[in-house]
Amino acid sequence: MEFYIKSSIFNKAIAEVSSVITQKTTLPVLTGIKLTAEADGLTLTGSNSEIIIYKKIPVMEVGDSPVTIQKTGSIVLPAKYISQLVKKLHAPVHLFVKDHFATLTSGDIITRMNGFDSLEYPNLPSLDGCETISMDSKQLMEMIRQTVFAVSSNETRPVLNGVNIQFSQDEAVAVATNSHRLALRKQAIPTAKAVSCTIPSKALVELMKITGTESPTINLYITEGHIAFEMEHTTLYARLIEGNYPDTEKLFPSEYKTSVTLNTLKLLQGIDRASLFASEWKHNNVRLSLKETGLKISSTSTEVGEISETQSIHELTGDKDLTIHIDGNFLMDALKQVQSEQVKVQFGGSMRPIVIQPVGDDTYLHLISPVRSY
Amino acid sequence: MEFYIKSSIFNKAIAEVSSVITQKTTLPVLTGIKLTAEADGLTLTGSNSEIIIYKKIPVMEVGDSPVTIQKTGSIVLPAKYISQLVKKLHAPVHLFVKDHFATLTSGDIITRMNGFDSLEYPNLPSLDGCETISMDSKQLMEMIRQTVFAVSSNETRPVLNGVNIQFSQDEAVAVATNSHRLALRKQAIPTAKAVSCTIPSKALVELMKITGTESPTINLYITEGHIAFEMEHTTLYARLIEGNYPDTEKLFPSEYKTSVTLNTLKLLQGIDRASLFASEWKHNNVRLSLKETGLKISSTSTEVGEISETQSIHELTGDKDLTIHIDGNFLMDALKQVQSEQVKVQFGGSMRPIVIQPVGDDTYLHLISPVRSY
Repeated sequence: MEFYIKSSIFNKAIAEVSSVITQKTTLPVLTGIKLTAEADGLTLTGSNSEIIIYKKIPVMEVGDSPVTIQKTGSIVLPAKYISQLVKKLHAPVHLFVKDHFATLTSGDIITRMNGFDSLEYPNLPSLDGCETISMDSKQLMEMIRQTVFAVSSNETRPVLNGVNIQFSQDEAVAVATNSHRLALRKQAIPTAKAVSCTIPSKALVELMKITGTESPTINLYITEGHIAFEMEHTTLYARLIEGNYPDTEKLFPSEYKTSVTLNTLKLLQGIDRASLFASEWKHNNVRLSLKETGLKISSTSTEVGEISETQSIHELTGDKDLTIHIDGNFLMDALKQVQSEQVKVQFGGSMRPIVIQPVGDDTYLHLISPVRSY
Repeated sequence: MEFYIKSSIFNKAIAEVSSVITQKTTLPVLTGIKLTAEADGLTLTGSNSEIIIYKKIPVMEVGDSPVTIQKTGSIVLPAKYISQLVKKLHAPVHLFVKDHFATLTSGDIITRMNGFDSLEYPNLPSLDGCETISMDSKQLMEMIRQTVFAVSSNETRPVLNGVNIQFSQDEAVAVATNSHRLALRKQAIPTAKAVSCTIPSKALVELMKITGTESPTINLYITEGHIAFEMEHTTLYARLIEGNYPDTEKLFPSEYKTSVTLNTLKLLQGIDRASLFASEWKHNNVRLSLKETGLKISSTSTEVGEISETQSIHELTGDKDLTIHIDGNFLMDALKQVQSEQVKVQFGGSMRPIVIQPVGDDTYLHLISPVRSY
């Protein structure tokens, strides 16, 4: 195996596939990056067995090719060392492999490194019998961003550690919940077959990091056990979470006692300030009180003090008198995902969940259960 | 006590005095910031008992004063809460104190906070009988920056946890060492009395953070037990480290076997690369070998591999054949403080310390002991 590659391109590709690699693995070969030189390009693979990132740097027939293959072959090199090294090289890199032993030369710098046999490296998951769905990259990223923060971090119910995406004929619905709050985002899509899958939040966070502006479209391949997100030169594979995702449709209240419209940013800042004395409570209790004069936002710490402010309400329908305690962090998380200037907050009563929705956009919904005030 | 203050000015002052405050203190009042309203301005004090930062915001008689005093007085408010709160206020702040209970109002936002009695707060150290020295702020900061990184982090010899500054008639000499490496910086100054003090590195790091461009001159007040650094509106007090600082003069070799001149940045980058396989060793062993062809920089890890490069030498005097093992991190620390393009490295033999010095600048010296290669 032998190839030449531009150091900056090599560095960027190594950084991308490295991000999922961990030193804490039971399979030593997974601490490495698999490099495969084929006639048409170099591929890099990094994996933590749950998530795999596969990246191709193609040989360009015309112009200044980023990579030139001298001899095909494959090796696995320790990710920790190869990534630290290549970051510090500025001249083109020549990599030559003989007997699982790699020699990298860049300008005056010569490095020799022990590798693993590439035959020990696990194969990519099979995509046989998969459903294929094409999605606009920006739309998919927005769906993920608006839901992934709401997943559960408690591992007692694994299915809640992922975002569930349900595809139907012309719509994709993403849902995440930790059973105290729930985020839901709908997206119209070109025709797709009905399929539902629950993707670990860690895989989606990785996907958001690498997507960037690489390709306008992402192809999704979904099998029984895996999902693959295929971009132009990079593919991320993730193991799906097994088990039925709970039916969340029935959690949304069918009627409200009160509905108010507020300025999104002002409300977010108000909750942020009121959280000052909320951290003393187990659930970051912030008190919301509807009054004739507006929405009073406050918190109290028995030891330190109290804070309050009253914000003007743009539109109010229903009961004018209501007090509810909400986890301030959950409410801020939800408001950060609202892009419209105004937000609608609907109350079913002081012991019922509140529903948050951007004004003029019914594709995003957020539900938060109240917390105890004693 | 009652005053009005611009929120941005209040926020900046709170952030400055807060940086030394810790929640881990045996004296609860030190978790707070002392605010004192006097006729001519507001003062803020933050302290961890070792380091005290004292800041004054003066009333301006003409124009738009940053602060307006309505009623003099003093209170200590919990640093954690007041700093988080004021960061999030944008309208001018009105602070009113009654019975150790403060009410802060800013626009629609009302906060009430329990404070401590300011009489419980320790007094500033007395500066009676101090020596006074004026120094150019930039020169003092450079002296500190070029030495403070070399102090010992081991607490068995407290005197080595500080930078020793020795003032004589027309010179200040700063020295720091952890007994494996030593940094020394001389600075010509206007007349001063002979005085020597050892200042804890933590205090100097704080000083570097707050100095900025506030005042061109810093006044130093040195007593038996304390030092005060007085800037225009801010004063930092530090408790001095007791005990005699070792005589470091005799550590510098009087003669060298070999002296070489190299490009500073290239050498730094080469050591950085060679450190790749050095971390396996207790002392980050990097091997330097003088050859006819140049300086070979290398490191080896028995398990993973090896790296080497040879850099050209600009000037060489003395023996041409020498190999020495040096802690790569210590060498990089020293080279980062060299501002000249070329650096002189002097060797006394493979078991003797090396001396690093910027070419054309004899005010800065750095000494590093070799490490074992087995």
